[in-house]
Amino acid sequence: MNVAVIGTGLIGTSIALALREHGSTVWLTDADPAAAQLAVDLGAGEPLPAEIRDPADVAVIAVPPAEVAATLAAAQARNLAHAYTDVASVKQLPVAQVRALSRDLASYVPGHPLAGREKHGPAAARADLFLGRTWALCPLPETADQALQAVTAMVRSCGAVPVRTDPAAHDRWVALISHAPHLVAAAMAARLEDAPGEALDLAGQGLRDVTRIAAGDTALWTQILSANAAPVAEVLAAVAADLAEAARELAEDDTSDKAVGGLLDRGQAGVARIPGKHGGAAREFAVVQVVIPDQPGELARLFHATGAAGVNIEDVRIEHSPGLPVGVAELYVRPAEAGVLLDALEAGGWPVRR
Amino acid sequence: MNVAVIGTGLIGTSIALALREHGSTVWLTDADPAAAQLAVDLGAGEPLPAEIRDPADVAVIAVPPAEVAATLAAAQARNLAHAYTDVASVKQLPVAQVRALSRDLASYVPGHPLAGREKHGPAAARADLFLGRTWALCPLPETADQALQAVTAMVRSCGAVPVRTDPAAHDRWVALISHAPHLVAAAMAARLEDAPGEALDLAGQGLRDVTRIAAGDTALWTQILSANAAPVAEVLAAVAADLAEAARELAEDDTSDKAVGGLLDRGQAGVARIPGKHGGAAREFAVVQVVIPDQPGELARLFHATGAAGVNIEDVRIEHSPGLPVGVAELYVRPAEAGVLLDALEAGGWPVRR
Repeated sequence: MNVAVIGTGLIGTSIALALREHGSTVWLTDADPAAAQLAVDLGAGEPLPAEIRDPADVAVIAVPPAEVAATLAAAQARNLAHAYTDVASVKQLPVAQVRALSRDLASYVPGHPLAGREKHGPAAARADLFLGRTWALCPLPETADQALQAVTAMVRSCGAVPVRTDPAAHDRWVALISHAPHLVAAAMAARLEDAPGEALDLAGQGLRDVTRIAAGDTALWTQILSANAAPVAEVLAAVAADLAEAARELAEDDTSDKAVGGLLDRGQAGVARIPGKHGGAAREFAVVQVVIPDQPGELARLFHATGAAGVNIEDVRIEHSPGLPVGVAELYVRPAEAGVLLDALEAGGWPVRR
Repeated sequence: MNVAVIGTGLIGTSIALALREHGSTVWLTDADPAAAQLAVDLGAGEPLPAEIRDPADVAVIAVPPAEVAATLAAAQARNLAHAYTDVASVKQLPVAQVRALSRDLASYVPGHPLAGREKHGPAAARADLFLGRTWALCPLPETADQALQAVTAMVRSCGAVPVRTDPAAHDRWVALISHAPHLVAAAMAARLEDAPGEALDLAGQGLRDVTRIAAGDTALWTQILSANAAPVAEVLAAVAADLAEAARELAEDDTSDKAVGGLLDRGQAGVARIPGKHGGAAREFAVVQVVIPDQPGELARLFHATGAAGVNIEDVRIEHSPGLPVGVAELYVRPAEAGVLLDALEAGGWPVRR
């Protein structure tokens, strides 16, 4: 496969690195020649030739959303590739601009890899950034099958799982599962800005999890949210209305607690619908808790014991507490294997609890 | 130390088990004799004698919030102990009721261990439930120093970290760091109840973290929220107002994005204030990422390598993807040790990225 990557930032360079591992030829270019050169130095590919004899199979437009249409039109004008895709995290805005600028919609497959890092630029790129991540593809009515097949093959070569949808549905979906949750986390975290330190000292894992993603970059997220304003606003307005109604009921000491109870029930039902690892439900794993001394080598001893038991650990969380010499390791395993693991660890003298 | 535990549910029995490990004598009683007997059978202590010759050092009132005052008054009437404490997760309600019912406030130290499990009853009890957890103590103006010292010693014997505050501040603090976040997570998760399955298939770790605690028990949380209604309502109303304003700005395509940008900035500042493990800031650890085959024994190999490098792993998160034979282990280490770990793992042939 021969792929041209236009825009050697984090995403473009990561795509190039992933494709190189699969033996593809990759051409690299960027508005900033230094960024393109760095990507070349990293082994992500070779500089885009000044003259193209044979068009690439796919050109990846890895530039900010507002620049997708002009970049695509310029690439099509020089017949750079047989098929084109972009990676913008919103889809309706670039698609509308492409419709206004481009005469060739048949070769264009709007795309969005659901992957990222907190860092930017080619130096932060990783060949495994897309491993197992979903990658939305939003073919237009005009998109040719051949283009869709070529871009889908490119996505699979990056290790990602292609998911077909359309631009409007895509934007509604990411509003719900990514953009709105970011602002909800920020709104809860904002309450902590002026909180007494003693209150924060009481904080547990729940608060940490609810607010974690609010640590993201403000400028980037303002852009993302503005470009997907209407669907995000719809979700946020509904969340705000539910919270305001719960607040009103609590403030008025309304003993029915219908709004609060109903919201808790609906929340529980919503959480249960999030798919878990390995495609199953989020709660499919059993948790085995082991108390471990907080020092080097203890995790090795523990995982030596789990490996010897033949049990695969699907996830691990370690809970430490300030000033204490021990922590608790939570081992997530398939329920059928929990008994074997508990027996093996207990036999090995580990203080376990399930 | 001699401690009487009144109410052998999850919390009471866990306190008893923790104290027994420290060699304390523990008396157990419960309104349900079968629950008390089960706690005795679990080794949590012995049945409360019908006649008390020498009062216990401390009596722990481990009953629901609304029953604290009557239970305390009855225990004081029979001179059960020199000092008394309770474990209710709200403090103003039981304190007001104690003031109305009890003539002896000097021996009473209102308390609240910040620990729990998703299960209930004595069978779910664990001696290490309070290890390293904070335990709020809210002495009243009338509380005697001797009572406070005895209860503080009991809390430390359970492995917990006592935190002094007053009932009103306590209720405001847990509203902010526990009760309101629970409803905020529920309100976001509630949006997923009727979402298309394809949207949920795109969900990443961010959505899982934001909504995780919303999986809790509705009946229990309705009680907790009702008993702390005013402080929770205040936090929720502020969160709802921020989200409504952000939604309005986005819906009106207000290009200033002042509300959205401001909320993101404040959220970032709030997250940064949550203390991390070992008493430091949440971001004090460096993260080393390692690609690992998803099969038994690989974690043992990895942690053998980290142990051999002499590096203490403070936390681990493992990210798997559906259908893929590899995952990424994220190792949290002290920043000064990250370089050593990276070198050691790379020398051992592990594909690492930082």
